[in-house]
Amino acid sequence: MKLLEERIIRDGRILPGDILKIDSFLNHQIDVRLLDEIGEEFHRLFMDCRPDKILTIEASGIAIATATSRSFGYIPVVFAKKTAASNMSDAVYQASEHSYTRNIDYVIQVAKDYLKEGERILILDDFLANGEAMNAMIEICKMAKAEIAGCGSVVCKTYQSGEQRIKDLGYKVEVLARVKSMTDDGKIEFE
Amino acid sequence: MKLLEERIIRDGRILPGDILKIDSFLNHQIDVRLLDEIGEEFHRLFMDCRPDKILTIEASGIAIATATSRSFGYIPVVFAKKTAASNMSDAVYQASEHSYTRNIDYVIQVAKDYLKEGERILILDDFLANGEAMNAMIEICKMAKAEIAGCGSVVCKTYQSGEQRIKDLGYKVEVLARVKSMTDDGKIEFE
Repeated sequence: MKLLEERIIRDGRILPGDILKIDSFLNHQIDVRLLDEIGEEFHRLFMDCRPDKILTIEASGIAIATATSRSFGYIPVVFAKKTAASNMSDAVYQASEHSYTRNIDYVIQVAKDYLKEGERILILDDFLANGEAMNAMIEICKMAKAEIAGCGSVVCKTYQSGEQRIKDLGYKVEVLARVKSMTDDGKIEFE
Repeated sequence: MKLLEERIIRDGRILPGDILKIDSFLNHQIDVRLLDEIGEEFHRLFMDCRPDKILTIEASGIAIATATSRSFGYIPVVFAKKTAASNMSDAVYQASEHSYTRNIDYVIQVAKDYLKEGERILILDDFLANGEAMNAMIEICKMAKAEIAGCGSVVCKTYQSGEQRIKDLGYKVEVLARVKSMTDDGKIEFE
């Protein structure tokens, strides 16, 4: 997605530890006009998959998922909640995720009421790094016997393993901005 | 807002401890069509205040703020981040908030880059209980020397202190659904 790549080049910042910060327009401050373009693009890429519902994860995924819902004619959005610890409950599906940037394990959970057998789920997130969050959402869909219509991410670094990991599970994966390389002096190249 | 009140009566659940759950359409699963109506209503209520930017707090505020931004012709959204502990940084404004439902203190923070002197800020949130989150966002706006254009909440219980607390600070407060009473057998009355 050209518009997004241009924006990342203009406003993205590279921090030590191979971290790409896009918090001036997506992850802390949000440019809602760009957000709507992102929603339109996900609609174009996944409309053939006919999703019934969008699943994402708090916090940054919420804006992306609601914008995409609108492009799909208002399908429901569910956002998984992140907690530091697992608290057993019959009312929720739970899966764990290891955060490499923070080096801690999260448990993500979705109330059973909001994910049903046979529903076609489009899974969306902002970053696809090693695929931990995406994989946890896939696990939760499987527990609910929901079908996975597709997996979309706004950004990925193609030299990390996440995209291939999810593709290897047999799912359609679409990424809007595929970062091929980043240098310490701030240069970002896309595939 | 009639549509919202009807939805709360239909789908809201009352849990022990005077908790109103609206997670089937706003706080976990999101009805994006209703969300857009909420955005339109906030626009109607605050358009005379001419906000430059919307400030909210993760996670549930994000969807509300981005929908409202759209009704305002795409003004930027900034969401405050919640952390369990204060980590001093020159790059962020911080304020603390006591959560009565969870009985812990949060530190909320906003990067200084995204809140500027003289900007007119519309503060939005999903629930206004005792006004702790709203008050912390007001504190952060003051640190930035930003102006507060107004404060909006989707729901409040009128027998809690939050709305009056924020009004007593001298700010315009608008609430879309004002719960007057809730009973254990599931009856909800609005003002």
